[in-house]
Amino acid sequence: MPTMKARVKVTLKNGVLDPQGKAIEHALDGLGFDGVSDVRQGRYFELDVEAVDKAAAQASVTAMCDKLLANTVIENYEIEVS
Amino acid sequence: MPTMKARVKVTLKNGVLDPQGKAIEHALDGLGFDGVSDVRQGRYFELDVEAVDKAAAQASVTAMCDKLLANTVIENYEIEVS
Repeated sequence: MPTMKARVKVTLKNGVLDPQGKAIEHALDGLGFDGVSDVRQGRYFELDVEAVDKAAAQASVTAMCDKLLANTVIENYEIEVS
Repeated sequence: MPTMKARVKVTLKNGVLDPQGKAIEHALDGLGFDGVSDVRQGRYFELDVEAVDKAAAQASVTAMCDKLLANTVIENYEIEVS
């Protein structure tokens, strides 16, 4: 089976408070960066997946996100397979 | 000045060990996902930046990465402005 590279972005859903992002925003402000707002921190994963085709890889990584990589109560995820 | 949305991916450089990624790989294996390898975890940021144009926003976010968002000794970053 071919190996495909999957890239996953996990971000907090809108409306979920992000104190870490707020801290980064204040730190950037303190460093002199003006005009920065709405900083949100998320996670990013890269993984190699063996699958018969792109659709199968996408389905497999979706299952991984639902089970382990993301907390779907408060997080969204976005998958890109290449 | 218009506000632009910047997306930043911060990843470990090749050759830098990623024990967190390895732990995720083992956890996925334990959950029954076969054929997963080379899991790498990174960080992801979304921020709004005020800048005169896209190039200025890109330059500003590059400076933020160098100063705060990434540890350039062991990490790479990728910026996308829209």
